[in-house]
Amino acid sequence: MAVYTRVEEPELRAFLSAYDVGEPIALVPIPEGVENSNFRLETSFGRFILTIYEKRVDPVDLPFFLGLMMHLAERGLPCPLPVRARDGSMLRELKGKPAAIVSFLEGKSPKRILPRHCAAVGAALASLHLAARGFPMHRANALGLSGWRALLAATRARADEVAPGLGDLLEAELAALEASWPRELPVGVIHADLFPDNVFFEGERISGLIDFYFACEDILAYDLAICLNAWCFEKDGAFNVTKARALLSGYRDRRPLSAAEIAALPVLARGAALRFLLTRLFDWLNRVPDALVQPKDPREYASKLCFHREVRGPGAYGIG
Amino acid sequence: MAVYTRVEEPELRAFLSAYDVGEPIALVPIPEGVENSNFRLETSFGRFILTIYEKRVDPVDLPFFLGLMMHLAERGLPCPLPVRARDGSMLRELKGKPAAIVSFLEGKSPKRILPRHCAAVGAALASLHLAARGFPMHRANALGLSGWRALLAATRARADEVAPGLGDLLEAELAALEASWPRELPVGVIHADLFPDNVFFEGERISGLIDFYFACEDILAYDLAICLNAWCFEKDGAFNVTKARALLSGYRDRRPLSAAEIAALPVLARGAALRFLLTRLFDWLNRVPDALVQPKDPREYASKLCFHREVRGPGAYGIG
Repeated sequence: MAVYTRVEEPELRAFLSAYDVGEPIALVPIPEGVENSNFRLETSFGRFILTIYEKRVDPVDLPFFLGLMMHLAERGLPCPLPVRARDGSMLRELKGKPAAIVSFLEGKSPKRILPRHCAAVGAALASLHLAARGFPMHRANALGLSGWRALLAATRARADEVAPGLGDLLEAELAALEASWPRELPVGVIHADLFPDNVFFEGERISGLIDFYFACEDILAYDLAICLNAWCFEKDGAFNVTKARALLSGYRDRRPLSAAEIAALPVLARGAALRFLLTRLFDWLNRVPDALVQPKDPREYASKLCFHREVRGPGAYGIG
Repeated sequence: MAVYTRVEEPELRAFLSAYDVGEPIALVPIPEGVENSNFRLETSFGRFILTIYEKRVDPVDLPFFLGLMMHLAERGLPCPLPVRARDGSMLRELKGKPAAIVSFLEGKSPKRILPRHCAAVGAALASLHLAARGFPMHRANALGLSGWRALLAATRARADEVAPGLGDLLEAELAALEASWPRELPVGVIHADLFPDNVFFEGERISGLIDFYFACEDILAYDLAICLNAWCFEKDGAFNVTKARALLSGYRDRRPLSAAEIAALPVLARGAALRFLLTRLFDWLNRVPDALVQPKDPREYASKLCFHREVRGPGAYGIG
């Protein structure tokens, strides 16, 4: 993730004095990502990630995110384990900002996504949904259906700068989804952002599920619909039904989907495409000229949205 | 650790169905150790250790041991992290015995112990003592001073079978220690068995502190005295003061020792030597002819005990 905050050695030593993570050896900024400042922290006890939370993350949400990571890591999922300071706290302050240390996970995001990656992600997502069942904290999805109207209002006027007719498309699409959004499907804690850059592999095996800073409670199958969008389209925009089938069957092997969940996949996939279209559009229209990270092109998700609008049923995803 | 219990695949699958650790790939028995049955469990999410607790471990103590490991692992120490089942429990049942899954730690015990290993162990022990401060559970040291009288009673009559005069030595030594044992030193949670085979290294770095099944509350400096015995003697029985100095200064860099703690090191080291002498003697006298694991020769600790009896002060350990 982008590094916005610099940390000097005396500040690091003062910060670490509240922890029992061993002696610091190195602190290396990690340039990827957009939300926070991340560093690889190496100590005499091993490798960790130090994160300083920048202004895009609401500090009120941090106990939910860190608590969820701990809940899942304690259950054997390959998630970062937040490190507690000696006083038990998981969240402290560095350079006047909230900061946390989590365990380092080995592995790499897949460069070229194959159906077997999709199957493994489906299975991991099901495990995440099952393991999160007992997690006691709550967080509504700020970027769920009820948040899209405000995002549309913030982007509508200039949407056509990105693609002619995009404003009307968004308007019509949101109205349609508000009318048809499923209300009775199983809900629970979802990752809500399980894109390929948030999944590490070591060989065939998933070795890391990271970036829980959009996690919230919402429809479980909506999380799967986000993954259909994130994992099953080719770079040229073509939908790969083999990957979708692998993703869905990986998931269903571990957590069976009800008939209602399967039937809702097309509308959930449209919703997921709209959500990323809206946030990318917002970031695109509000980009800072000298930002370290370029915003992603929103048109990728306009194209995905159009695909899901044309879908006649869950069979298009290789299921049902 | 020795494997006493066999686990077939259907039993493993049934056991794992309560967890979210992914699909089992392999279960490989680990032959080292003496107390429990251990297996390396490989799943689609990574590697774990599955332990089945055999009759030498009192099930009543298991929540303390597992809770402590979790407390320390959560604080960034390289300890095994117990894996919770979906219902939150860390302890379940397999083949009618208590069983737990913990995270797998990379690294190896040092084959040839160097002073730098001793320094790293001292620092890690201090971190363990500091990080354990807030741990809320309690366990008295069953193998502490108050337990030695019973061990002596169980071994006294046949002690001289192992070495002529050993019974009288034990008798005299226990009386001396009961009279001189320090009463005012800082106490806390101690590992109580931090031998080289319970410490893993990756290069220069400690990557694993394992086997918490003797952990308890006792004098903190007694834990250091156990390490003096376990890490600072050569195979020929010679005491290596360079290693002792490295161990103690590694510890003191992180947790300073009081003058009283330093002054007590010789008597604590005698106590630690007596403790391992008594338990090894008990195991030796009660060994089973066809056991998988041969008991260790108790005379090694008789020799260490005699060294500490001759010590005139903490200077013999390179300190004070």
